[in-house]
Amino acid sequence: MRIAVIGGGAAGIGAAGAAKGVDPDADVVVYTADTDVAYSPCGIPYVHGKEIDSFDRLFLATKEQYVATGIDVRYETTVDAIDPRSRTLAVAGEGEASYDRLVIASGWNYAAVDVPGADLDGIYEVKYIREAMEWDKRLDSCQSAVVVDAGLVAMEMVAALCHRGIKCIVVDPAPWPMADVLDPDIVEPVRQAWEDAGVDMQWGNRVTAFRGDGSVSRVETQQGDIESDIVIVGTHKVPNNPLAAAAGLELGSTGGLTVDSRMQTSDPNIYAAGDCTEIPHGVSDIPIQGLTGSHAYAQGKTAGTNAAGGTRHYRPVFVPWGLLAGEWMIGGVSFGETLATALGIQHVVGKAQGITRARYYPGVRPITVKLLAEPGSLRLIGAQMIGGEGIKERADFLAMAVRVGLTVEELATMENVYSPAIGALNEPISVAAQNLLAGL
Amino acid sequence: MRIAVIGGGAAGIGAAGAAKGVDPDADVVVYTADTDVAYSPCGIPYVHGKEIDSFDRLFLATKEQYVATGIDVRYETTVDAIDPRSRTLAVAGEGEASYDRLVIASGWNYAAVDVPGADLDGIYEVKYIREAMEWDKRLDSCQSAVVVDAGLVAMEMVAALCHRGIKCIVVDPAPWPMADVLDPDIVEPVRQAWEDAGVDMQWGNRVTAFRGDGSVSRVETQQGDIESDIVIVGTHKVPNNPLAAAAGLELGSTGGLTVDSRMQTSDPNIYAAGDCTEIPHGVSDIPIQGLTGSHAYAQGKTAGTNAAGGTRHYRPVFVPWGLLAGEWMIGGVSFGETLATALGIQHVVGKAQGITRARYYPGVRPITVKLLAEPGSLRLIGAQMIGGEGIKERADFLAMAVRVGLTVEELATMENVYSPAIGALNEPISVAAQNLLAGL
Repeated sequence: MRIAVIGGGAAGIGAAGAAKGVDPDADVVVYTADTDVAYSPCGIPYVHGKEIDSFDRLFLATKEQYVATGIDVRYETTVDAIDPRSRTLAVAGEGEASYDRLVIASGWNYAAVDVPGADLDGIYEVKYIREAMEWDKRLDSCQSAVVVDAGLVAMEMVAALCHRGIKCIVVDPAPWPMADVLDPDIVEPVRQAWEDAGVDMQWGNRVTAFRGDGSVSRVETQQGDIESDIVIVGTHKVPNNPLAAAAGLELGSTGGLTVDSRMQTSDPNIYAAGDCTEIPHGVSDIPIQGLTGSHAYAQGKTAGTNAAGGTRHYRPVFVPWGLLAGEWMIGGVSFGETLATALGIQHVVGKAQGITRARYYPGVRPITVKLLAEPGSLRLIGAQMIGGEGIKERADFLAMAVRVGLTVEELATMENVYSPAIGALNEPISVAAQNLLAGL
Repeated sequence: MRIAVIGGGAAGIGAAGAAKGVDPDADVVVYTADTDVAYSPCGIPYVHGKEIDSFDRLFLATKEQYVATGIDVRYETTVDAIDPRSRTLAVAGEGEASYDRLVIASGWNYAAVDVPGADLDGIYEVKYIREAMEWDKRLDSCQSAVVVDAGLVAMEMVAALCHRGIKCIVVDPAPWPMADVLDPDIVEPVRQAWEDAGVDMQWGNRVTAFRGDGSVSRVETQQGDIESDIVIVGTHKVPNNPLAAAAGLELGSTGGLTVDSRMQTSDPNIYAAGDCTEIPHGVSDIPIQGLTGSHAYAQGKTAGTNAAGGTRHYRPVFVPWGLLAGEWMIGGVSFGETLATALGIQHVVGKAQGITRARYYPGVRPITVKLLAEPGSLRLIGAQMIGGEGIKERADFLAMAVRVGLTVEELATMENVYSPAIGALNEPISVAAQNLLAGL
C-alpha cells in the first residue's frame, strides 16, 4: 500500500501520521514544496512581535525524528500534476510516482491583491518560516508598513509591528477589522488599542497599485498615496487547488475540494484535508473554508485513517476561533450578528460585560460575551467575545453548545466556578443568556 | 409584605435584592451578626498572602449604598429564635419582629475540632473580614502555624502562609489534601509544591489537644507535639442550623435545611438558601452542602424571588469548582474517582496531560484533565483538573456537559480553538475523552 500526501502542513502531517498508525506497513510519502515540516506557522507573527524569542522555538520536531516514524518526507519537492486514472503523480525532479491512495493537503494562499506592482519585492505574505526569518531581519530597519486588509494575520501582525515601533497603515475596503467574522462592537477595543498605538486605519479604502524601483516604496490607494518600506498582505485565505482542478476533482462554491464525512473527494482513491477543502457549517449548512490548524490536523487524521483502510468521520463544523491581538483576546463561534444578517439567518441577541476574576483580584480583566440564538427555539447559534483571558475555553464550550443544540435557557441557569483568583461571581455567558431572555 | 432575611452573606444579600426586585414595596430586613455585608470573604486568604494589597478591596459596596437600595440591614444583630406559628423572630436587643415570609441564609461553620483547648486564643477560623484584619497584623510576627485539616481554605492559606515566610505544619487524618473531593494524582503537583516550599505535611495524623497559657502555643497530635504560634482551622463546612432546628424545620442527612426547587423549607412561609441548605447532586441525587458563593447567590435569588411572590426554580447541582493553590489551579465537576468509588458509583476513566498554549508561547503551562463517565452510556459524570490556567472555564463547560448528558464520544470529537497565544493544537478535554474511548 503506497499512500502519497501532497502538503506538509498540519493536515498533511496529520494524515501521514494517522495512515502510518492504521497501516504501519504502508509506504507513506509526503511531498512538500516547503523546506521544513513540523513547525508552527501560526507562531510567526509572535516571533516578529518578540513575544517569542526565536523562530527555532516554532519547530516541533527535527527531520531526523520524522525519519524515525517511518514517514518519507520529500522536502522542497513540488508535485506538478495528479493523474487519477493511472494513480500517478508528476513530481518535479523525480518523474512519475504512483500511489494507491492520495491525500491532498495543498493548503491555502492569501487572496491575490490584484493590482499593478503586486510582484515587487517588499510585499510580505506571512506564511513560511524560512522566509519569515529573512523578513524578520528586514523589519529591524523598517520604518513603516502598509497592511493590506485587516484579516486574521493582520490582527496579529499589527500588534507585532507596533511592538517593534514600526508605523502601521491599515488599508481595508471593509469598515472594521475582520469584518467578515467579527461584529463592530466586539472588535471596538482592538480598534481603539490600534488608534492609541498610532496605527493609521484607512477603512473603506482600497489599494490600487504598488510602486517602487524593484522593491515597493509607495502604495497607491483610492484615497491617496502612502510611502511605505514594506507591505504585509492580510487578505483572506483561498484554497490552493490548481492541481486538483487540473485533475478534474470536484471543487465547491468556495474553491475548496468537496469531501464527504470520510474526507474522500470525488475520486474514491483521493482524500483531502485542511485549507484546500470546504466543510459544511453545522448551523447554516453552507460550505466554508479557511479554518484553523486544529481543524486541519483533525481533518488530516480523518483523511489519513480512511486512506489507510480505517474508518473515521469528520463532522460539520461550528468553528470556535480566537486569537490574541495586542492586549485583547477576541474570538467567537459559528457567526456573529454581521455574518448572520448577511446570510439572512434570523437571530435574537443577548450581550453582557463581565469580569474574568473577582473585581479586586490582580489581573482581573473585562470580558464581553454576545450570544446569538434562533428565535422561538432559543437554541444557541453563534457567539462573539472579547476579553483579557478565558476566550479560548469559552469558545470551545460554546461551539459544543451550538453543536448539541443547547438553549439560552440552559445557559442562563448554568453553574459556574466562583473563586476570586480564577473566576467572578457571575459568569458572563450566563448573564448574556439571562439578558437575552429578559429582552424577549 | 414584610420579608425577613437571616444572614448577610451571598445568599442573604441575593435573596434581599431579588425580593426587592419582585416587590419594590415589600419591607425587606436583613439581620446579620456580622459587622458588614457586601464583602467577599473568599478574598481573605489572598489578602493574607499579599496577592491583594488591602482588605478594603474586598468590600463591594458601602453601607450607604445598601440604604439606597431600600434594604434595611441590621448589623451585629443576632436572631435568637424563629417562631413559625406566629411568624415572629426573637431579635437580640430589638425584641419580637414579625415576618410574612422568612429567608434563612444562616450559612455555615467550620466543623468543630473537638479536642481540649479548642477555646484557646490563637485558633483562627478564616471567615469574617474584621477578624481577618486583626489576624493579619498577628501574622506579621508569626513564625509557625499548624493547619488543621487540608480542606478548601487550607489550599489557599498554606500558599498565603508560605508567601509570608511562615512555617506551615499541616495535620490531617486524610491521606492527601481535600481528599473528599480531589483525587491524589490530580492534587500531586500541589502537594509537591508544598513540599518544595518546606511545608511539614502530616497526613494520617490527628490533633488531640491545643495547649497554651491563654493563647495556643503547642498542638498535641497522635504522632507528637508541635510548637506553633497559631492554628488555622481548615475543616469542612457544616450548615449553621441551630435556629432552624429549634424552630422544628426539617433538616436533611447533611444537617442542611431541606428545600424544594423553589428553595422553600418544610414551612411554606420560610425559604432558605446558601450553605445552611442541602441540594440534590444532579448525578447521584444525594443531598450535598457546602457549595460556593456563586451557588449561594443564585439560591438566594431563587429564595428571595419566591418569597416575594415571584416564581423561580433552582436545579440539582453538578458543582463546578476551582481555586488557586499557589502556582496551581485545581478544580473539578461533580466527582472524581475517589468520591465516585466511595459512593459506589460505577465509572470509567480517561486522562490526558496537555498544555494551555502553544508549546513555545510564553506563559504556557501544563494542564491535566481526567474525565469520569458512566459505563455503557459513556455519559460524562465527573471531572478533575489541575493546571496553570483555564481551569474555571473548563469546569463550567464540563458541569454543563454532565448536566445535559454529553457523552465521551461527543467530547472526543469536540472542536477547539487553536492559536499559539491562547490555546494549543490539542484540547486536553478532547484528548482525555479520546484516551477513555481507546482504553475501553
